[in-house]
Amino acid sequence: MTKSNDLSTSYLHDYSKSLQPKLSKWRRYLHQHPELGWCEFLTSSYIKEALEPLKCDVYTGEAVTKSDQRLGLPTEEIRQFYYRLAEEKLGPSQFLEEIAQSHTGVVARFETGKPGKHMAFRFDIDALPIQEVELKDHIPEKEGFRSNRQQTMHACAHDGHTAIGLGLAQFLDQHLDELTGTYTLLFQPSEEGLRGARSMVEKGWLDGVDLFLSGHIMEGELGTVTATTQGQLASTKYETTFHGRSAHAGANPDSGANAILAAAHATIGLHGISRHHAGDSRINVGQINGGQGKNIIADYAKIGFETRGSTTEVNTYISNEAHRIIEGAARMQNVTYETKKQGESISVPSNREWVGKVKQALTDSHIVTTIIDDGVVGGSEDATLMMKAVQDQGGLATYMLYHSPLAGLHHQPNFDYHENVLCVAVHTLMSLVAAEQRS
Amino acid sequence: MTKSNDLSTSYLHDYSKSLQPKLSKWRRYLHQHPELGWCEFLTSSYIKEALEPLKCDVYTGEAVTKSDQRLGLPTEEIRQFYYRLAEEKLGPSQFLEEIAQSHTGVVARFETGKPGKHMAFRFDIDALPIQEVELKDHIPEKEGFRSNRQQTMHACAHDGHTAIGLGLAQFLDQHLDELTGTYTLLFQPSEEGLRGARSMVEKGWLDGVDLFLSGHIMEGELGTVTATTQGQLASTKYETTFHGRSAHAGANPDSGANAILAAAHATIGLHGISRHHAGDSRINVGQINGGQGKNIIADYAKIGFETRGSTTEVNTYISNEAHRIIEGAARMQNVTYETKKQGESISVPSNREWVGKVKQALTDSHIVTTIIDDGVVGGSEDATLMMKAVQDQGGLATYMLYHSPLAGLHHQPNFDYHENVLCVAVHTLMSLVAAEQRS
Amino acid sequence: MTKSNDLSTSYLHDYSKSLQPKLSKWRRYLHQHPELGWCEFLTSSYIKEALEPLKCDVYTGEAVTKSDQRLGLPTEEIRQFYYRLAEEKLGPSQFLEEIAQSHTGVVARFETGKPGKHMAFRFDIDALPIQEVELKDHIPEKEGFRSNRQQTMHACAHDGHTAIGLGLAQFLDQHLDELTGTYTLLFQPSEEGLRGARSMVEKGWLDGVDLFLSGHIMEGELGTVTATTQGQLASTKYETTFHGRSAHAGANPDSGANAILAAAHATIGLHGISRHHAGDSRINVGQINGGQGKNIIADYAKIGFETRGSTTEVNTYISNEAHRIIEGAARMQNVTYETKKQGESISVPSNREWVGKVKQALTDSHIVTTIIDDGVVGGSEDATLMMKAVQDQGGLATYMLYHSPLAGLHHQPNFDYHENVLCVAVHTLMSLVAAEQRS
Amino acid sequence: MTKSNDLSTSYLHDYSKSLQPKLSKWRRYLHQHPELGWCEFLTSSYIKEALEPLKCDVYTGEAVTKSDQRLGLPTEEIRQFYYRLAEEKLGPSQFLEEIAQSHTGVVARFETGKPGKHMAFRFDIDALPIQEVELKDHIPEKEGFRSNRQQTMHACAHDGHTAIGLGLAQFLDQHLDELTGTYTLLFQPSEEGLRGARSMVEKGWLDGVDLFLSGHIMEGELGTVTATTQGQLASTKYETTFHGRSAHAGANPDSGANAILAAAHATIGLHGISRHHAGDSRINVGQINGGQGKNIIADYAKIGFETRGSTTEVNTYISNEAHRIIEGAARMQNVTYETKKQGESISVPSNREWVGKVKQALTDSHIVTTIIDDGVVGGSEDATLMMKAVQDQGGLATYMLYHSPLAGLHHQPNFDYHENVLCVAVHTLMSLVAAEQRS
Repeated sequence: MTKSNDLSTSYLHDYSKSLQPKLSKWRRYLHQHPELGWCEFLTSSYIKEALEPLKCDVYTGEAVTKSDQRLGLPTEEIRQFYYRLAEEKLGPSQFLEEIAQSHTGVVARFETGKPGKHMAFRFDIDALPIQEVELKDHIPEKEGFRSNRQQTMHACAHDGHTAIGLGLAQFLDQHLDELTGTYTLLFQPSEEGLRGARSMVEKGWLDGVDLFLSGHIMEGELGTVTATTQGQLASTKYETTFHGRSAHAGANPDSGANAILAAAHATIGLHGISRHHAGDSRINVGQINGGQGKNIIADYAKIGFETRGSTTEVNTYISNEAHRIIEGAARMQNVTYETKKQGESISVPSNREWVGKVKQALTDSHIVTTIIDDGVVGGSEDATLMMKAVQDQGGLATYMLYHSPLAGLHHQPNFDYHENVLCVAVHTLMSLVAAEQRS
Repeated sequence: MTKSNDLSTSYLHDYSKSLQPKLSKWRRYLHQHPELGWCEFLTSSYIKEALEPLKCDVYTGEAVTKSDQRLGLPTEEIRQFYYRLAEEKLGPSQFLEEIAQSHTGVVARFETGKPGKHMAFRFDIDALPIQEVELKDHIPEKEGFRSNRQQTMHACAHDGHTAIGLGLAQFLDQHLDELTGTYTLLFQPSEEGLRGARSMVEKGWLDGVDLFLSGHIMEGELGTVTATTQGQLASTKYETTFHGRSAHAGANPDSGANAILAAAHATIGLHGISRHHAGDSRINVGQINGGQGKNIIADYAKIGFETRGSTTEVNTYISNEAHRIIEGAARMQNVTYETKKQGESISVPSNREWVGKVKQALTDSHIVTTIIDDGVVGGSEDATLMMKAVQDQGGLATYMLYHSPLAGLHHQPNFDYHENVLCVAVHTLMSLVAAEQRS
Repeated sequence: MTKSNDLSTSYLHDYSKSLQPKLSKWRRYLHQHPELGWCEFLTSSYIKEALEPLKCDVYTGEAVTKSDQRLGLPTEEIRQFYYRLAEEKLGPSQFLEEIAQSHTGVVARFETGKPGKHMAFRFDIDALPIQEVELKDHIPEKEGFRSNRQQTMHACAHDGHTAIGLGLAQFLDQHLDELTGTYTLLFQPSEEGLRGARSMVEKGWLDGVDLFLSGHIMEGELGTVTATTQGQLASTKYETTFHGRSAHAGANPDSGANAILAAAHATIGLHGISRHHAGDSRINVGQINGGQGKNIIADYAKIGFETRGSTTEVNTYISNEAHRIIEGAARMQNVTYETKKQGESISVPSNREWVGKVKQALTDSHIVTTIIDDGVVGGSEDATLMMKAVQDQGGLATYMLYHSPLAGLHHQPNFDYHENVLCVAVHTLMSLVAAEQRS
Repeated sequence: MTKSNDLSTSYLHDYSKSLQPKLSKWRRYLHQHPELGWCEFLTSSYIKEALEPLKCDVYTGEAVTKSDQRLGLPTEEIRQFYYRLAEEKLGPSQFLEEIAQSHTGVVARFETGKPGKHMAFRFDIDALPIQEVELKDHIPEKEGFRSNRQQTMHACAHDGHTAIGLGLAQFLDQHLDELTGTYTLLFQPSEEGLRGARSMVEKGWLDGVDLFLSGHIMEGELGTVTATTQGQLASTKYETTFHGRSAHAGANPDSGANAILAAAHATIGLHGISRHHAGDSRINVGQINGGQGKNIIADYAKIGFETRGSTTEVNTYISNEAHRIIEGAARMQNVTYETKKQGESISVPSNREWVGKVKQALTDSHIVTTIIDDGVVGGSEDATLMMKAVQDQGGLATYMLYHSPLAGLHHQPNFDYHENVLCVAVHTLMSLVAAEQRS
């Protein structure tokens, strides 16, 4: 790789394009080995190994997250399932042992030693509990990198996000002496369920950050990038467990207290929470589980659900309604219950300054051909907690969108994107880094 | 053990009482090692070993049940869980391998070689998915034979039933030359869920049986036996799986088809099935399970439920209602579904002739001090399928109750009975065997 | 009409048969002018006029019921609807004014002046809110006495019961000097909903009664009478009103509190109350009503429901469950509510002595050809409150069944019975009166 | 009233202010005599009488609406209730007879005879089924013009809208020779429920209209007017009737088909329809009604509901979901059903040209001190059907907001506004008329 001279647009073009094979390779390995949130054992190893040769400090294990702020940790059974698979694949190691108790995630920090801005980038690394399709025309299947883990799939593009982060790291490594300031790359565990960001914020990783960037691969045309987003939905994740009283369903049905019925009433009641006049809202009971046997009145049942709102006010309204509905449903069936918060995000708009920054950085770009000023994301993101942390210190934060045609919608078993979007994204981030040098 | 002379009442008294320590020992071993239906690996080994020294033919593995008539087989995961535990306890063996694919259960047949009646006895051997209490005054805890398997418990006295069968086998073994005819002892797997009986009937074990006896330990006073029962509740067990369409609950809630909501509507609808004018009925959704993540519209959900009726007509009414309600609930949420039958029993009254037989056999008994002509059982029993098979051939069948004070109701985590009821039950069966010789 | 000599069986035969035309006439007039409970204005007038010429004291208005013990009084609107119709038919009168505030019902007391038993008979007089069919082969339509009141029908045979009472009154009138003791005929308002009996018991009409008889026309063969019944279902009737908060459903849906949703959750929850191990139970939400407009979150909703149990224990269980479920459903939707009791009955078996009495009284009867000792009634009856009042004083009470083929089941719009059953019933009661003279 | 010279701003100020006493008088009379949609008998008389002295053609009865396009006509009972009250108040008249079959509404057309634009104005005249509060500080109560009709209230300001229309008519009458073109004032019946507009459009009243104005009194500051609105929610109103099978709830519960349970399941299911990713939606079951008696399985139940969407697509999604949910709920309970459309509106944005028109017309106005370019309305409006009809012909349509502080929200029993808003609204419309003359 030759020197870049002045990180000119044409140099950045060439550099980005030359990265494409690596981006695909990284992405495909990750796609084939997906791991659920707080179980990114193999993933964290892979990221660490890719970063270690570079001119940055690599932080892992307990250095990454504040342990007691990790929301929604998985069950022992799930954690061990992924741990065992990682160990089978990699062999036992001290590193795996260090992160075994869900101390996943990696942080890379590049210090130029020269005064300048502190830019931070966040990449989420976890996968979803979805069984990937085996259809012939599904590219991961056709090209041999379909998920090899039962009921686990990168169906939200975090494999790509991670590859983008690794690509950016390589660029920073190779041009560090041309840059000033500090660059922090956060490979965040457990974005799904909005569980991981809080623990990285609380660990202090955003302290002193001037410019924060995160983003997502999203449906659209290749070469299109959205510079800012209006604010994701605020969201909260909950798990409620109902405790009833078991009884023989034939001999003593009246002496039971039916936890499954309570969960069913609660589920239906939750989905009936009214819309709010002040904005968009969501409610979803996405998990249910209860009972021991068909002939036993169920003495427990559990539901996992989430609320969302286009503003924190709306999300709070939905949450408050939910709590009361659950209380009522429990009362109906004479059962007790407890509700635990398992994840959260807020609604934070990007700073408008990024529209100008992005447009300026990508003037004359052939890779990014269209820039949308502002977009809307239907989902929720715990990167919002990082954005708020940065904005509260006077920094500027944005959440960008890198557009690509999709084979299936996010979170669906046939989800897939065009791998060139990885190049588009790295190119965008590199260009923004370069532009800050010039500004 | 001395010869019995004429199997006199007083001899039978002494014999029964001398069995008590063994009955307790057997029962406690079984109580400590409970196994769910179709997973009775350790249990079947234990029974087989106890029977093998005796003067009977012992049948195991595929000889016991008609393979394709075994209803409600467990998941691979559950089957392997118990298999591994049995293998750990007993070491690998050819026998374990033979029964590994849920070919559990044992049959013992004593042939006297002399013409006479064919008497058959059924003992159920499986346990329940209930976590046994650890309370200090719970006798299995206090005396050290509490279940050592997570979430598995003999909370329906099948440990005792099996011990009674082993006791009877010993009696038959020791008095075979004083007896005539044939004696078949059916150690039936998977009574819970009404899953095992059909496969033993279909295997032909009831063919040619003249007298069939089964029974249950039931609440009441020690020394009291109920000679016949009016007919258990007819019952059917089902599992319904709803198939929806997953979607991101934040970004595309309208493109999902919510299987959890369908299951919740079905559950509540099922519990709302009307009572029937013609008799007692029951409905219970005892299991529910669905969804992948809180932020995904659930694309599957499963419910396990049972129907019951005091007559087959009533049970059929409840079942028919259930099928239509499920169809409607699926339609409401635009999901598809399938329902599988997983167990069944019918309503068969005991033959009234047994009232006389039992009274005559136990005249002057000091062990059985009270005989109730006829009782009612709130639950369901797949022994009814065996009873009907025998009655259809012109034989006589009864389902008896052996009464004992109970520490907790059946199917509850503090269930327990007085071990002397085992002696009462064996005494009753031995006396009926002896009485047939005199008749 | 000739003198009866000795009230012989053959005399009673002739007398009963001669009554048939009158019984039909009375019944048809009542059938054509049905009135709901507490609105029996025309009905009470008709009964009073039929009784006044007879040798009995006739009690009406406030003398009949204890005012504040009348349960489930109708709305003003309903009361006025029937009152206006009665006034249109009969013209204004002082009598109508006296009973206008739902002081309906009539009592006739025959005093012989001679010492003897006090026999009381109860006949219920109210109709149901059912629209009678207009089918050609429905006899009331064919013969021109179909209900001429919208949505009101004698679909529970109370027209016949009243006619039986008038027939018995005529018999008592014509044979009073051959009889001893006292005879009280209670023409009770508002049996439907179990609303009227309590107020007659509290008024003291059952004080000092030795023998109490009530009964019902029931499906079966003409000429068959059931002497006693085992005890009706205990039952309670309730009305629950939910109070929410209205809001514009488009502009401010989140500021409403939805009373209709609360009522819907409660309704479904109530129908899901578990069966009871100790006996038959029932639950029915039979009325629902709420909301002002499609675009308004409903600020009120009302449900009318009933519970039943084969014993008071079972009925109490269902009621207790119901109260808690309603509380929970109200909580779910953040609404308040109140529940009012509107009717009640208990489970009281007939005294067994009546089997002998009825058999003896009807020996050699050609009109009653079959006597069933004991029957079961699926429904509930507030005559049970009268039965208990009599039994508590040491008297004997029975609830009999007079069987007839039915064109449609009770409470259905095509309900009808064979009018000869009226003769059978009067004959039975006359024979029992006569038999008491002989005993 | 002196001549206006040139309809100058200062003249219009004086004129508007001089109208205030009349506006209040008209509004108060209408407020005191509210009538539901299609029952505006008194209201139509009152409008007709106010218009008849003026220099316009007044159209009433069948001339106003296309009869078979009137959606959601009321029940006979409701229609007669209001008709009787109108007749009591006004005495019988030929006019009342002409409009008796819900031919309510009035149209006034002013022809100047000079070429010019055709301007049309729509004023809605019906009230809501809400019981007005009697609180002392509720101004209609304090000042003696509270609704004198049970459960009927102008809680959506249509009393004010009608008064505004009458004020505008007076202005047009007095300045007709200074104006050019045609002016049509549509006093539309039955806006609530979105029932009336379609029948006026179909009657042809919007044919040839160049400029169409409608609007609503809305919360905000006095003197503020919103020139255009972005498009109301599209909405559809439905009524579904479930037909079951009645049965005695005690004796034959299993032979019924429970229509109330079907309605309850449908209601809860409807409220659980998912949000749509593409925009705001609403669902409300605002009316429920069913059953005959507590002891009868209900053979009918009716629900009235509405759907809304920020676009027609979203509203169509909600409607389609609703139809399927109702089908499923009916299937669950084995009942039949039919669903009738009872009202509809679409989502039509105002033409942006009106922002300029309004600003220009009200330059220097002291009465309208603030103009908001564009507003959003949470509710739905069938004026949108008229707007679309005009826009489809190339005309310009707007829906304006006249702001006032409110004592309670729209559709609530304590709704009230400041009467000066009537002057603001008339002033706005007069100024727009005058400005068109100048343009």
